[in-house]
Amino acid sequence: MQRAAAAWVRRGCCPGTRGPWRRGRSSAAAEAPAVLPGRPERAPRERILTPESMNPRVRAVEYAVRGPIVLKAGEIELELQRGIKKPFTEVIRANIGDAQAMGQQPITFLRQVMALCTYPNLLDSPSFPEDAKTRARRILQACGGNSLGSYSASQGVNCIREDVAAYIARRDGGVPADPDNIYLTTGASDGITTILKILVSGGGKSRTGVLIPIPQYPLYSAVLSELGAVQVNYYLDEDNCWALDVQELRRAVREAKEHCDPKVLCIINPGNPTGQVQSRKCIEDVIHLAWEEKLFLLADEVYQDNVYSADCTFHSFKKVLWELGPEYSSNVELASFHSTSKGYMGECGYRGGYMEVVNLHPEIKGQLVKLLSVRLCPPVSGQAAMDIVVNPPRPGEESFAQFVREKEAVLSNLAEKAKLTEDLFNQVPGIRCNPLQGAMYAFPRLFLPPRAVEAAQAHGMAPDMFYCMRLLEETGICVVPGSGFGQREGTYHFRMTILPPVEKLKTVLQRVKDFHVQFLQEFA
Amino acid sequence: MQRAAAAWVRRGCCPGTRGPWRRGRSSAAAEAPAVLPGRPERAPRERILTPESMNPRVRAVEYAVRGPIVLKAGEIELELQRGIKKPFTEVIRANIGDAQAMGQQPITFLRQVMALCTYPNLLDSPSFPEDAKTRARRILQACGGNSLGSYSASQGVNCIREDVAAYIARRDGGVPADPDNIYLTTGASDGITTILKILVSGGGKSRTGVLIPIPQYPLYSAVLSELGAVQVNYYLDEDNCWALDVQELRRAVREAKEHCDPKVLCIINPGNPTGQVQSRKCIEDVIHLAWEEKLFLLADEVYQDNVYSADCTFHSFKKVLWELGPEYSSNVELASFHSTSKGYMGECGYRGGYMEVVNLHPEIKGQLVKLLSVRLCPPVSGQAAMDIVVNPPRPGEESFAQFVREKEAVLSNLAEKAKLTEDLFNQVPGIRCNPLQGAMYAFPRLFLPPRAVEAAQAHGMAPDMFYCMRLLEETGICVVPGSGFGQREGTYHFRMTILPPVEKLKTVLQRVKDFHVQFLQEFA
Repeated sequence: MQRAAAAWVRRGCCPGTRGPWRRGRSSAAAEAPAVLPGRPERAPRERILTPESMNPRVRAVEYAVRGPIVLKAGEIELELQRGIKKPFTEVIRANIGDAQAMGQQPITFLRQVMALCTYPNLLDSPSFPEDAKTRARRILQACGGNSLGSYSASQGVNCIREDVAAYIARRDGGVPADPDNIYLTTGASDGITTILKILVSGGGKSRTGVLIPIPQYPLYSAVLSELGAVQVNYYLDEDNCWALDVQELRRAVREAKEHCDPKVLCIINPGNPTGQVQSRKCIEDVIHLAWEEKLFLLADEVYQDNVYSADCTFHSFKKVLWELGPEYSSNVELASFHSTSKGYMGECGYRGGYMEVVNLHPEIKGQLVKLLSVRLCPPVSGQAAMDIVVNPPRPGEESFAQFVREKEAVLSNLAEKAKLTEDLFNQVPGIRCNPLQGAMYAFPRLFLPPRAVEAAQAHGMAPDMFYCMRLLEETGICVVPGSGFGQREGTYHFRMTILPPVEKLKTVLQRVKDFHVQFLQEFA
Repeated sequence: MQRAAAAWVRRGCCPGTRGPWRRGRSSAAAEAPAVLPGRPERAPRERILTPESMNPRVRAVEYAVRGPIVLKAGEIELELQRGIKKPFTEVIRANIGDAQAMGQQPITFLRQVMALCTYPNLLDSPSFPEDAKTRARRILQACGGNSLGSYSASQGVNCIREDVAAYIARRDGGVPADPDNIYLTTGASDGITTILKILVSGGGKSRTGVLIPIPQYPLYSAVLSELGAVQVNYYLDEDNCWALDVQELRRAVREAKEHCDPKVLCIINPGNPTGQVQSRKCIEDVIHLAWEEKLFLLADEVYQDNVYSADCTFHSFKKVLWELGPEYSSNVELASFHSTSKGYMGECGYRGGYMEVVNLHPEIKGQLVKLLSVRLCPPVSGQAAMDIVVNPPRPGEESFAQFVREKEAVLSNLAEKAKLTEDLFNQVPGIRCNPLQGAMYAFPRLFLPPRAVEAAQAHGMAPDMFYCMRLLEETGICVVPGSGFGQREGTYHFRMTILPPVEKLKTVLQRVKDFHVQFLQEFA
């Protein structure tokens, strides 16, 4: 296996998390084909776009969730297809929160409305329920030419923004939401990227600093690299179920002020990759800090429906902001994000999402619409999917019972798997796993023996990358090393989704356990 | 009407093309609500994100196609809804190439396949043709969990990339295309933005210069602003049907070298907003120049199916590159773009598209996949739509006849409207319109009397913005001023789509004519 690890390095494939994307000597000359005989001779050219000449900010971007380990997983799948023998028969992609790829079935009502919108001839079909038809007609009437094929307004279809606002008000116990503050997006990532793009400015010590949790979802670090913003880390408290510690946040702000202008604070709640659900008190403390330190809040709340621990409740930043009174609710600037990709629906492929802004400067709203208009509009099919998420069947409607049954089945199944995963990981010596209060990932800590750390370093790899590569090659299980999310120096983790079906998840966990025990023995 | 123009200025709405987005004094203090009595007193805060503190590159972005004139159109529509009397009963949005919003019907086969993919229960329905079911099954089998709701690979679904490559090879008379060089995108804009993002680097005199045609589609100038690249203009030859003049291109490169590093050349063929179709000879000349001047080629070919003039043919840059022999086809770097939004299908809302790269450095391909992976994947529904565009019904298949009928109806209708528009504009004194060889826009030149130019300047507006605002307010017709696309100093134009149905288009053209004659009289 050490030979295998060395081979990744030889192929330039996997040193740490940089993998095949690291900067290397231009191989243009080596790649240029020979000039054919009889042709006028022209020296093979150096390419214009090379790793040396490209945008250095893009070169600096890293994104572990689809990084080298996932490329490796793809290679192994091809080898399996070609009949190459492995100690396993399939690759299990537990690296990404992609529920339907793991067999979760779409919510019937959602797909019925989408099919009706796609092919309106079906509105005459008796095999679709009336409430689905009503939803579809409402969406189509709001689309240009009554078609999903028209561009929508840059900010999104009006009636869908109204439905989103109504949903937020219901969710937050009546706190008002204004459709004018809703921007439909191409998944949550698009909204987060767009607002960060507007926020980042300045140079040198006045360059914008953006506070992100560590561990973080690597969209944040990737976008900050691309924008040349200063990434300011605040560490979540692993010993306290990955809670956000406001004193640590204060430290991060204080230290950041020495070299940049910290003015944005990103929070992921429920946490990704860490799965904690923030308490109401903690959110209050964060808002107080944002007020004092003049921080623009970004609340990534895409897992708002994914809360499993009985003693945890999701509180939106918007709601808590309101409950703190008008001096907060009228002043603190906040953007929060939701998506069709997570929750109980798991509609990742449609790239639906929304952003709600609060207290945004009126001229900035115009700037935002202008910036969004350059990409014309978010996919209208994704907007329609978002509409059904925020406007599901209601009591008394034909599809209500089935909808509730399907939704509850997904969520109770996830809750069962969250508990199962926590329990099983904590039975393995050398693994410690916090409770999975929410989201859809375990992020267990690995206690690796010093000889394993040395072996990884000898291969030019982060120790947890070395561990995860070995796990993939020996078991077919694809998880993402903690180094791709960030972690305290000297600690090691990986992120694994809990999305495989229960029986398969049990097998996965058992295989990780067996692998881990053997790994410990090898490097004892 | 001069009063009306003054009112736009008072409302800060439309000075030239900057409109409501121009930088202004922060109005945060004025907007902050009063602190309620009895609350602990805290001074109203200045906002963190203001027009002064925001990213100055984003502030500099302009995008006329959805700019101030379109906001004004929205205001007028609301006024009409509220019963306010106008000299017209509806706003006609001829500002954007949005075919289905103008009543064009979707291609039946495309929507049937999409509906089957969306709600696979329909695969058992006898009301869908077998060839549509075969396509849908093929797409679903290539999706994770056989669902459009799963993420695809960052580069797009494999079998769809294969279909795109096969389409390109057919289109280009057998020139090979490699699925590995195909990247599915969220409309063409996404692909153009992504490759430009990678290409732009350097500072000062070594900052990347990007050559764009003038007039241009304003996506280009917007993205270059955002990236801080140097926009290098080359002027199309209006007196020669908007042809690309290679001598002018050479001049632009030469002059650019004095202040930046020109290394990217963007071509739009067929032209937007100018509608010209490039000759094969012209494309050859451009490729020779790209070789000599070491320029990376970006070929925006989204209107490849929209060619109307009998003496024009679409030639792809890829094909001509190949036909020039291996020293070109193996060396010149090219990215070309296509989309589901234009052509005969007009599926803008699905945001489907692809980019083909040629001679891209192998490490840059990795960088590209990495960058794309941060946004996870393009909408899978848009990918499916792209698949049907490149893999339509074939002779002998059940849906073939209907598909051909629908496609030809759209294209012959567009050809008729292209001719009609050219002819009618050229009957108006003070308007001159080049032939609409392709695409879906007229870009007529306006000969405005000096007094109209002075009146516009007095209102702080570009003369053609002044003209278009007046046109909108008096006739309800929404077109985009030439200043939003760029034009030679002292010339004035507007862009109008030819998408309204024939009878409506005739009315539109007659109204423009009447307005123009009256406008000339007013300012004679």
